[in-house]
Amino acid sequence: MIRIIFIFAFLLPTSLASVLDFCVADLKGAESPAGYPCKPPASLTVDDFVFSHFRAGNTSNFLKFSLTPAFVDQFPGVNGLGFSAARLDMEAGGLIPMHSHPGASELLVMVQGHITAGFISSDNTVFVKSLIKGDIMIFPQGLLHFQINAGRGKAKAAAILTFSSPNPGAQILDLALFGSKLDSALVSRTTFLDPAQVKKLKGIFGGSG
Amino acid sequence: MIRIIFIFAFLLPTSLASVLDFCVADLKGAESPAGYPCKPPASLTVDDFVFSHFRAGNTSNFLKFSLTPAFVDQFPGVNGLGFSAARLDMEAGGLIPMHSHPGASELLVMVQGHITAGFISSDNTVFVKSLIKGDIMIFPQGLLHFQINAGRGKAKAAAILTFSSPNPGAQILDLALFGSKLDSALVSRTTFLDPAQVKKLKGIFGGSG
Amino acid sequence: MIRIIFIFAFLLPTSLASVLDFCVADLKGAESPAGYPCKPPASLTVDDFVFSHFRAGNTSNFLKFSLTPAFVDQFPGVNGLGFSAARLDMEAGGLIPMHSHPGASELLVMVQGHITAGFISSDNTVFVKSLIKGDIMIFPQGLLHFQINAGRGKAKAAAILTFSSPNPGAQILDLALFGSKLDSALVSRTTFLDPAQVKKLKGIFGGSG
Amino acid sequence: MIRIIFIFAFLLPTSLASVLDFCVADLKGAESPAGYPCKPPASLTVDDFVFSHFRAGNTSNFLKFSLTPAFVDQFPGVNGLGFSAARLDMEAGGLIPMHSHPGASELLVMVQGHITAGFISSDNTVFVKSLIKGDIMIFPQGLLHFQINAGRGKAKAAAILTFSSPNPGAQILDLALFGSKLDSALVSRTTFLDPAQVKKLKGIFGGSG
Amino acid sequence: MIRIIFIFAFLLPTSLASVLDFCVADLKGAESPAGYPCKPPASLTVDDFVFSHFRAGNTSNFLKFSLTPAFVDQFPGVNGLGFSAARLDMEAGGLIPMHSHPGASELLVMVQGHITAGFISSDNTVFVKSLIKGDIMIFPQGLLHFQINAGRGKAKAAAILTFSSPNPGAQILDLALFGSKLDSALVSRTTFLDPAQVKKLKGIFGGSG
Amino acid sequence: MIRIIFIFAFLLPTSLASVLDFCVADLKGAESPAGYPCKPPASLTVDDFVFSHFRAGNTSNFLKFSLTPAFVDQFPGVNGLGFSAARLDMEAGGLIPMHSHPGASELLVMVQGHITAGFISSDNTVFVKSLIKGDIMIFPQGLLHFQINAGRGKAKAAAILTFSSPNPGAQILDLALFGSKLDSALVSRTTFLDPAQVKKLKGIFGGSG
Repeated sequence: MIRIIFIFAFLLPTSLASVLDFCVADLKGAESPAGYPCKPPASLTVDDFVFSHFRAGNTSNFLKFSLTPAFVDQFPGVNGLGFSAARLDMEAGGLIPMHSHPGASELLVMVQGHITAGFISSDNTVFVKSLIKGDIMIFPQGLLHFQINAGRGKAKAAAILTFSSPNPGAQILDLALFGSKLDSALVSRTTFLDPAQVKKLKGIFGGSG
Repeated sequence: MIRIIFIFAFLLPTSLASVLDFCVADLKGAESPAGYPCKPPASLTVDDFVFSHFRAGNTSNFLKFSLTPAFVDQFPGVNGLGFSAARLDMEAGGLIPMHSHPGASELLVMVQGHITAGFISSDNTVFVKSLIKGDIMIFPQGLLHFQINAGRGKAKAAAILTFSSPNPGAQILDLALFGSKLDSALVSRTTFLDPAQVKKLKGIFGGSG
Repeated sequence: MIRIIFIFAFLLPTSLASVLDFCVADLKGAESPAGYPCKPPASLTVDDFVFSHFRAGNTSNFLKFSLTPAFVDQFPGVNGLGFSAARLDMEAGGLIPMHSHPGASELLVMVQGHITAGFISSDNTVFVKSLIKGDIMIFPQGLLHFQINAGRGKAKAAAILTFSSPNPGAQILDLALFGSKLDSALVSRTTFLDPAQVKKLKGIFGGSG
Repeated sequence: MIRIIFIFAFLLPTSLASVLDFCVADLKGAESPAGYPCKPPASLTVDDFVFSHFRAGNTSNFLKFSLTPAFVDQFPGVNGLGFSAARLDMEAGGLIPMHSHPGASELLVMVQGHITAGFISSDNTVFVKSLIKGDIMIFPQGLLHFQINAGRGKAKAAAILTFSSPNPGAQILDLALFGSKLDSALVSRTTFLDPAQVKKLKGIFGGSG
Repeated sequence: MIRIIFIFAFLLPTSLASVLDFCVADLKGAESPAGYPCKPPASLTVDDFVFSHFRAGNTSNFLKFSLTPAFVDQFPGVNGLGFSAARLDMEAGGLIPMHSHPGASELLVMVQGHITAGFISSDNTVFVKSLIKGDIMIFPQGLLHFQINAGRGKAKAAAILTFSSPNPGAQILDLALFGSKLDSALVSRTTFLDPAQVKKLKGIFGGSG
Repeated sequence: MIRIIFIFAFLLPTSLASVLDFCVADLKGAESPAGYPCKPPASLTVDDFVFSHFRAGNTSNFLKFSLTPAFVDQFPGVNGLGFSAARLDMEAGGLIPMHSHPGASELLVMVQGHITAGFISSDNTVFVKSLIKGDIMIFPQGLLHFQINAGRGKAKAAAILTFSSPNPGAQILDLALFGSKLDSALVSRTTFLDPAQVKKLKGIFGGSG
């Protein structure tokens, strides 16, 4: 029997050196535009392909949500595979404020409660929908969008998010404008917001300048 | 005010003719290697970006599962966006038999119950794991994999699947070999299965030849 | 000699049916995720590869700039080639307000005057620079950025912009929030802007809702 | 048994509308940057995936070679698959003159005789090799290269060529310069060739201007 | 003359640091999803672009074939170029059993003898053909396929295979199921094969579990 | 306020380890087919995104032009972004001789004077145009093209060039043929140029062989 196996091994020469069926990220290596370098295939176990921390966070925060990412930095197995995921849990009144993902489109699957979500396209058309358990909504790459727990009373909401990149990025509008060091006068001038409004929000979001 | 808007419109010349922020599929058009042609942006509503049929099927079948796809043919909004989704519901004893997706990697998020899942890589390494609610597992493109409801008693299991393509395809091993018209002698010769075994399974899966 | 030419033609069989050295857009055809269908190669002239309208606009508008796009809808020759261009002219005091391109990175080449430009990354780091003639600055895909004529007195400024897509799109923050039909209460809630501020800017930018 | 098949069909919803395992070109459709539209899957037979004309041409021409292409226009099955092929047969003294492929890299497999082949890189390094049956040589995309039958006496040579695109294109230097309508003075000025040399070769290759 | 050359060198600034006309693999470097890092261009010779071991193997094995790969691990020159090759030689009775390539489509060129080959698509359609010298057949990415020497008597068969990736991978059905450590009960359950059949083939192919 | 910022940071997990909004090249790292590895995001300043050397060269050379590249080796910020740029200045009589870019298409924007430019397609069609300030012309990837200062008297010409790759490469016909070590007999045989012509140009361009 050994001989047969040997013969088949001959069929599989790449197995001797590399298997690029997948490329689990070696997070200690230097990223390139294509992602992280691969961990040696021989060192991998099934746990490199499993993410076990995809559970609701216990945070009860200002915005009343928790987000559990499974992007390449948390889940190295998605490196090079073209997708990643995140879990969103929202308490009553929870809100994900206006933001965009510069590197990926987003697909949201409702698993609990009610969420009102929307995005705005390049031609300023607005697409808003009230979603219930069992709905999917997509948010194309780079466009501003938001999600709000639309449940009544103390109803929680939860969704599974997937992204078309292992590293989608996220630009949150208020943090970009008011939580950064962008000069307040520049913020005001480039957004047409009143200086007082800018100052107020800089105070809330901790920006300087 | 009208004048200002007019000026900004000048900033957005593409809005006059085309917006390729997204490309919702016109399923009546001819597919190309890049997907379907786009529906005219002006004809779109939010429902082009929402899929409302992502609920557990009511099928109680031989294999005790139901699969609800949201691929480009069911959910034209994912055209060109690089992903799609499906919902998997399994009754007690449910099973997705050995299969592969020639066009996409898969990301499975457990939302209910217990599932034992596994895949086999090109070098014949086996990666199997018992998953519980809140786990993610990934199945790289083109590799054989399976999922089994591992719950005890009458426990149901459910998962959200996402794929790295709007049209992942699926090659189910038994259907390919025993549910097709592939000549039985060829099946036997190319798989080393006994002719009697092939004949038996051809009977079960409805193949001819 | 004819025979030789005939022989070489045999070397070039694709010339008989299609040349995909390029794919000048047939704007009457339906777009797909890869762009427009190609005009027949035999119908092309050099003018399909030349854009002759890349001159300063004569607009003197509210924001004191003019933008002349050479995107695929204006310049069909860039279809499928992975880039496009635009010309920016700014009078004294000119301003391109905060915006992002969901589909492309931008490369700005200064050809006249002074411009202060900046962008904000996903981690809220601010990158701002005063640019002079002969400087280049890049703005990565999907990130908020702005440009201001920083010249003194009546100095004009001008720049050549190129984009990493034939159809970069542009989401202008104020138009998305205040020039669209997005409900004012939703704007306020998802951006933390005061309702009065939202109302004021909705008035300026012509939004409803 | 019918019920089982029905159930499995449910697993394969894409089969009802589209299978993008492949996209055999409908040559009557309009090309896009991604290739031709797909023929309907239901209309396909195995002959859409087989090319039966890959045999030595019977041409005995000026340059003593024949080239049999299996590009997308001859072999629609390669549409969207990222490769194509050609068969090269050279009589004694045969020569493929200096040329480049703007759209693909080339891989040459020797199947008969001796060929001397070479290419020149962007930094003007020359890579030349005498190849025998059983050798492979690669020619990176867009670089000038050539092949010469290096066999002695009346020895024929043959090779299988594959390309990294369904439509590699080919720019043959002499035809581009001397078989086209490019003005002779421009040819001379932009190549530093003597006008008399240009005139002589224009005569041979049939160019005008 | 030196001055002229110097001037032209100025035209070629990339030659001073890097030439990405090609990226010959440094197999000692860490792979990323885009392949191996490049060897320094200055260290390259023509032999980096030539593979001289593409000859029929002398193996006379159980399955009566030999396969000589020229994938990136054997032929580093194909790194980043989007293709690779292999040579297949089959004795009388030779057989490549059912398998798939998760990372590439395959193009087979017959150079000797007769081969019967086939593949099965996602919708379980079977495409089988008897091929002779001078035929090409393609096998789309990720689909099960096989090749059998169909010559009579002691006729050998040979083919040149090319793949649309430098590292196509190969999943051989029998090795995946019966030559791996996948638990026999799981094999039986997920394939519907009789336990005795699984046990028998596990014995032949050397699997455990 | 600190608490709020902390919460938002939770929204941005990628900021802790990596931001792939961009990938400024670490030129000391090894290139891969996707480009250079990224510099650590925390080390970046705005000057990584600005190129300040994009000014007319002061060379007055044999061909009467100067070219100032901003490719990835000069401007590491373009790594992974899909474009790069160069500035072209031509004195009276200036000329960029026949050449091609194996890795990118080119977009030329006229900013001063008159240039006559042209390219030749795979089917030997010639596209030539006299360009003036404010014109754009595109040169598809891999095709031979040239630019000549067409101004009268002592008029200078200048253009901004952009490319669809951070590293476009450039193969200059005369340097490839006559400035390299390609054997003169091979040059003559593969181009049909007279040996005396080859010898003369080898002398001018400094080639050997």
